[in-house]
Amino acid sequence: MSYHPSWRGITFHDVVPAGAVTARAYLEHCLERIAEREPVVRAFTAMSVEDARAAADASSARWKAGAPLSPIDGMPIAIKDLIETRDMPTQMGSAAYEGNFPKREGAGVRALREAGAIILAKTVTTELGQSEPGPTTNPWNRAHTPGGSSSGSAAAVAAGFVPVAIGTQVGGSIIRPAAYCGNWALKPTQGGIHRGERQGTSQSTAGPHANCAEDAWMVAREISRRAGGDPGHPGIQGPIAPPEPQRPMRIGVMRTEIWDRMPPKAREAFEQLLRSFAPEVVWPDEHPLLKALERSVGNANAVGGLITSFENRAGLLNLPRDKLGPRTVARLDASMAYTAQDYHAALVERQVMRAAQAAIAPVFDMLIAPSCPGPAPAWDPTAPDAAKNGRPTGDASCNAGTSALGAPAVTMPMLAVEGMPMGVQVVCQPGEDARAIAYARWLYKHTPVMSL
Amino acid sequence: MSYHPSWRGITFHDVVPAGAVTARAYLEHCLERIAEREPVVRAFTAMSVEDARAAADASSARWKAGAPLSPIDGMPIAIKDLIETRDMPTQMGSAAYEGNFPKREGAGVRALREAGAIILAKTVTTELGQSEPGPTTNPWNRAHTPGGSSSGSAAAVAAGFVPVAIGTQVGGSIIRPAAYCGNWALKPTQGGIHRGERQGTSQSTAGPHANCAEDAWMVAREISRRAGGDPGHPGIQGPIAPPEPQRPMRIGVMRTEIWDRMPPKAREAFEQLLRSFAPEVVWPDEHPLLKALERSVGNANAVGGLITSFENRAGLLNLPRDKLGPRTVARLDASMAYTAQDYHAALVERQVMRAAQAAIAPVFDMLIAPSCPGPAPAWDPTAPDAAKNGRPTGDASCNAGTSALGAPAVTMPMLAVEGMPMGVQVVCQPGEDARAIAYARWLYKHTPVMSL
Repeated sequence: MSYHPSWRGITFHDVVPAGAVTARAYLEHCLERIAEREPVVRAFTAMSVEDARAAADASSARWKAGAPLSPIDGMPIAIKDLIETRDMPTQMGSAAYEGNFPKREGAGVRALREAGAIILAKTVTTELGQSEPGPTTNPWNRAHTPGGSSSGSAAAVAAGFVPVAIGTQVGGSIIRPAAYCGNWALKPTQGGIHRGERQGTSQSTAGPHANCAEDAWMVAREISRRAGGDPGHPGIQGPIAPPEPQRPMRIGVMRTEIWDRMPPKAREAFEQLLRSFAPEVVWPDEHPLLKALERSVGNANAVGGLITSFENRAGLLNLPRDKLGPRTVARLDASMAYTAQDYHAALVERQVMRAAQAAIAPVFDMLIAPSCPGPAPAWDPTAPDAAKNGRPTGDASCNAGTSALGAPAVTMPMLAVEGMPMGVQVVCQPGEDARAIAYARWLYKHTPVMSL
Repeated sequence: MSYHPSWRGITFHDVVPAGAVTARAYLEHCLERIAEREPVVRAFTAMSVEDARAAADASSARWKAGAPLSPIDGMPIAIKDLIETRDMPTQMGSAAYEGNFPKREGAGVRALREAGAIILAKTVTTELGQSEPGPTTNPWNRAHTPGGSSSGSAAAVAAGFVPVAIGTQVGGSIIRPAAYCGNWALKPTQGGIHRGERQGTSQSTAGPHANCAEDAWMVAREISRRAGGDPGHPGIQGPIAPPEPQRPMRIGVMRTEIWDRMPPKAREAFEQLLRSFAPEVVWPDEHPLLKALERSVGNANAVGGLITSFENRAGLLNLPRDKLGPRTVARLDASMAYTAQDYHAALVERQVMRAAQAAIAPVFDMLIAPSCPGPAPAWDPTAPDAAKNGRPTGDASCNAGTSALGAPAVTMPMLAVEGMPMGVQVVCQPGEDARAIAYARWLYKHTPVMSL
């Protein structure tokens, strides 16, 4: 099934709230697609079908009575298996957590239930959100990775199993798989969506995958208006309804540190797309502040990697080593060399990056960047050299910068390269999540999508 | 046993490192005192005696070989039972966590082991660190509370069970019990000591109780130099050796919001002590910036309470309600009225308080404040009106301000009122933990302690 970016996946905001079908009927459509494609896509680790049906019936009754709990009342949602849900196990893609079923859930999942959303399933994550892949395949080509670590969330949305799935990103784990699968996704401002009590890392966010900006926004905002953000953060702000399209005045290009190593066709597709943007587009070589930002975030992969490895170390050392995959063990072992002083220096370097981004605020409304280096790479776990592949779910270099910046990023499915999806991302200042959605909607509406 | 502040409890830095006794002999002295007094003091929830003896023997050998892992190698330490340790249960003073034994530990505990410290016991906390008291009694008078929520940590240090015990503070849970028990304690800068993976609240710190500034500092610093601070924080900085005494130039008084309701004798003791300070002491009515700070933090109890209740809500709702004590249930129920907007407004009010503190930095080196409103109140759980007492472990109003400010506080045992201890605290700017220790040491050394 060759992908073209004019393809539209299943959406919710214009269906159930519009009265086209009941919440129960919508759920049944989802279940039919799951029955049909899940054996190949393998997006889910657990499902809660009967509870979902009961919740959908209750939602149908509320809509019928004209009293929905929120605009997402009745929306079936899947949750990445790093996040706890009270009615399904949380195994984190890790043998060390096999059978883990704590029967509790974080403030974000609770908020979704309070808004009437239906928690239908848990989705596959790479092992502990790191590099060991799970069984999920890319819905557009089963021989390719769906990306990671939010593999199942990205695939579930692209396959039409659910209109929205929650992923998490430390390095590039929301935006990259969304881009590989042809989804929209919002990686919110750091702290913008409550992650639950487990807050072991300082650059990690939860965020929605969806088939449109509206569904993504509504889910994110219905969580933050109830649960706030991470402890100490108010959560993403902005209108409850999806922000209307807004034309950015001036756009800066963020090439990301992988620019020179991107496949030529993918780079060409990105450049062609930018030439068809109506607003002014400025490249780093044309403006010294953009160039300075590019230099500053040019080391984001290494800096974010050191910070995250140091922060993950004590937790990983608590787990039985023989239950960890070889890529996870390799990263843990490498992290043993980092001192608290190295960590301190990396935190300061991250602060400097954030200052470089803050400095461009008066000059550029937003940044535009590729969401992934190119289409999803092929991945065959049975290939003879599979064990040597350090990045079976693809390269996060396009996302390391925005992750370290703590900035909101919205990926849009605007490109296809050789029949596979490729995303481009709108990046705004921390706190400007609503603005990122508004700009993305405008650009998406006024720019032709492209297949190369 | 009437308390006088000239009393000195057991210390470590001048004993084992000085070669006075071996680490094993030091431990045996601790175990003797525990055997003698623990039946009344009831500071511990669990002990790990045989592992401690083995660790002490290993430490003795390292000291003998001239190769200790750190200056706290061989120090017996007790850990508040909110913090996970791999070899003892973590029951958090809560029936909902009875038997909880996750066999993992946070980065801070791991760092202590790496430094050679001996994790001897877990200490009693109030239920989930809130208001329901545990069984611990005040070592100076068994009819009085040891304070909370770090009840067992405070009592264990005062009773000579261990030279250092780790407590945690959200509102006033390190400094207040330390002051009630006649200890030194450091409540570090917010984020300054790694709390482990459970980071559900935005104003919570771990910190040491000790019988001297030196032991408190060394433990805090040996943790931060290995584990950094909370995710995203470098951890407290400063010399590895205890900061030498340093004379502050100018001291501002922080009366705290309970000032007008303090027992007159306690207030008089505090005022008399300040009259004998050598450096210049300025009262809020004498300087408009101090007055502005006082006004700003005057609402800290309510602001911190709202923030913490909102942040704790989702976690508490995960627990079986019938396993929670009445004071915890009452607070949870009250918190259900708070919206994410209330939370956002409280976070902003906290930011404004922090700005008011930052503004005094060029004018005042430090603040001085009572650590508690007076000596530890009597507490008899069998009294007919016991259930009506909303604060059985005392009033945290002297600490609400510094907790909300995220500022380092060092309490010094410099006062006795009616035969019971009362502390005074040095408060510095966030990040100035080492300076707070240096000023506290100077004031303690150059000011006569006082009994009223």
